[in-house]
Amino acid sequence: MSSTATPSELLELSPDAQSLLFREARTANTFTDEPVSDDQIRAIYDLVKWAPSAANTQPLRVVIVRSPEAKERLLPLLSEGNRAKTDAAPVTAILATDVRFFDHWDRLLPYKQGGGASFEGAPEQAEGMARFNGALQAGYFLLGVRAAGLAAGPMAGFDKAAVDAEFLPDTQRSLLVVNIGHPGPEAWFDRLPRLEHDEVVTTV
Amino acid sequence: MSSTATPSELLELSPDAQSLLFREARTANTFTDEPVSDDQIRAIYDLVKWAPSAANTQPLRVVIVRSPEAKERLLPLLSEGNRAKTDAAPVTAILATDVRFFDHWDRLLPYKQGGGASFEGAPEQAEGMARFNGALQAGYFLLGVRAAGLAAGPMAGFDKAAVDAEFLPDTQRSLLVVNIGHPGPEAWFDRLPRLEHDEVVTTV
Repeated sequence: MSSTATPSELLELSPDAQSLLFREARTANTFTDEPVSDDQIRAIYDLVKWAPSAANTQPLRVVIVRSPEAKERLLPLLSEGNRAKTDAAPVTAILATDVRFFDHWDRLLPYKQGGGASFEGAPEQAEGMARFNGALQAGYFLLGVRAAGLAAGPMAGFDKAAVDAEFLPDTQRSLLVVNIGHPGPEAWFDRLPRLEHDEVVTTV
Repeated sequence: MSSTATPSELLELSPDAQSLLFREARTANTFTDEPVSDDQIRAIYDLVKWAPSAANTQPLRVVIVRSPEAKERLLPLLSEGNRAKTDAAPVTAILATDVRFFDHWDRLLPYKQGGGASFEGAPEQAEGMARFNGALQAGYFLLGVRAAGLAAGPMAGFDKAAVDAEFLPDTQRSLLVVNIGHPGPEAWFDRLPRLEHDEVVTTV
């Protein structure tokens, strides 16, 4: 390994993949009318499902808002600045987390049979675990959208309680709303700065 | 696009990269003594810093526990089952989130000067935003470790308050502890099942 290797060269991931997922990928704010198929969504899940969650809990749940009727129900629940781009996106994903993730415990963590029962009387602990691992999986999902050659437009600006009531079962909590599609004209804002390595990483 | 395309073929990400990051990558439970360099850690951050966070807040902070002295301070704060593998890992990362992320607001979101001030009187809102976006970035970081050709061993089983007190400034909260290295003998447990597409994704 040469002492003059660039950070990119120190990675095993190919430069093309680095660009597709991280370096060149951007949050899209406009979309063309090119559709996103259910098979593409299926391929994204089939990829990101393999990334890890604590105790294999996998609390992430996804509602794909595709029909015009469903889109009409979603738009008024978003911050005003998020409505036009969501209306233009071929599909919009509501990423949510299931606070009853432990109902699947015995199947997902078979070597700790019955371990999920400890969450029955501890709803705050269950919700904390659901929210942390749901967010972890939301990160994987955003990269999965990019892996499909699509642009993601994640949005935190929406009425969470209203989205939960309108689209989710009682056991789920919305985390993020994500437009998915092919970027349209002037899809990007200027790239925003990132924190320097030494502001984020310390070594002890 | 053929109707017989597999999910993998529907993705733009190369099969090699799919394997490296998702399909073949596994949570490691043993490590060789091959070192992990600071340059590799730097390369990981240089990649994952580009993935998105809400309002570009970037609350993730990372403490790389490398010295034997620091490792000795960490080990007793972990669940007993996590100690031997952490002792064996060449480095262990404490992933944390900064609840004062908004101190960097004007630099990171220059078109909304002063917008961070709204968090001054709303510590619960700030902590919620820090925890969600820190977890999102933790997901990116785990995939970044894999992008470097290294194995990650994320652990949620540790005394969070004790780790915060021992390793972090007052403004940071630990989220996950992650062993990083090259997998050793019998590094993997059997692969655990994943939820089916139709259990996770619904379309409306």
